[in-house]
Amino acid sequence: MMKQAIVMRTDLKMGKGKIAAQACHASLNAYKKADRYDKRKWEHEGQKKVVLKVGSEKELLKLFHEIKNTTSLPCTLITDAGHTQIEPSTRTCIGIGPASDKEIDAMTGHLKLL
Amino acid sequence: MMKQAIVMRTDLKMGKGKIAAQACHASLNAYKKADRYDKRKWEHEGQKKVVLKVGSEKELLKLFHEIKNTTSLPCTLITDAGHTQIEPSTRTCIGIGPASDKEIDAMTGHLKLL
Repeated sequence: MMKQAIVMRTDLKMGKGKIAAQACHASLNAYKKADRYDKRKWEHEGQKKVVLKVGSEKELLKLFHEIKNTTSLPCTLITDAGHTQIEPSTRTCIGIGPASDKEIDAMTGHLKLL
Repeated sequence: MMKQAIVMRTDLKMGKGKIAAQACHASLNAYKKADRYDKRKWEHEGQKKVVLKVGSEKELLKLFHEIKNTTSLPCTLITDAGHTQIEPSTRTCIGIGPASDKEIDAMTGHLKLL
């Protein structure tokens, strides 16, 4: 099975709409980086998505760099322009995949659902 | 200016993570339906996204059919498989665009931000 994971910071106290918009940025940008075969497989399986949480920027960046340095997973870090609710250039979330459940779980299995 | 709008039901009492995942489905599916030129323009402008709300399925479907019947906007209705939190085959949200602010506002200008 394939999935896409979004990892969202909870310490920014963003509202529901803001969280959803940031997740959409991450989802679309990670999708564009994914392998064509993986995208098709994920689409045929119903486009499973999970939204996970971290409690700080430090934790978010640590995960992002671990994924970048140790895997070939498509992964994107979202920086908000900060027009609304939060400071400019705030890192809000990362998008990972679509890729296999197994590969994504190896990096995110310790995180809880948002 | 270009934007993409997500219109989300609030009456389903979905959690933040569920809302974010549904919004991602809508964002990606509407993006895939959009005109190539509109996508590029939107990407160059920073991929503006807004998340709006409606209070019922009736209101969601009315808007979806109005858009389908009276415009050529890329628009997608998301039906949740219902594995978690909500009943199977629940319509949760719609994704509209990327398209021009003006065209999207003509259909959604009366809605409030989520």
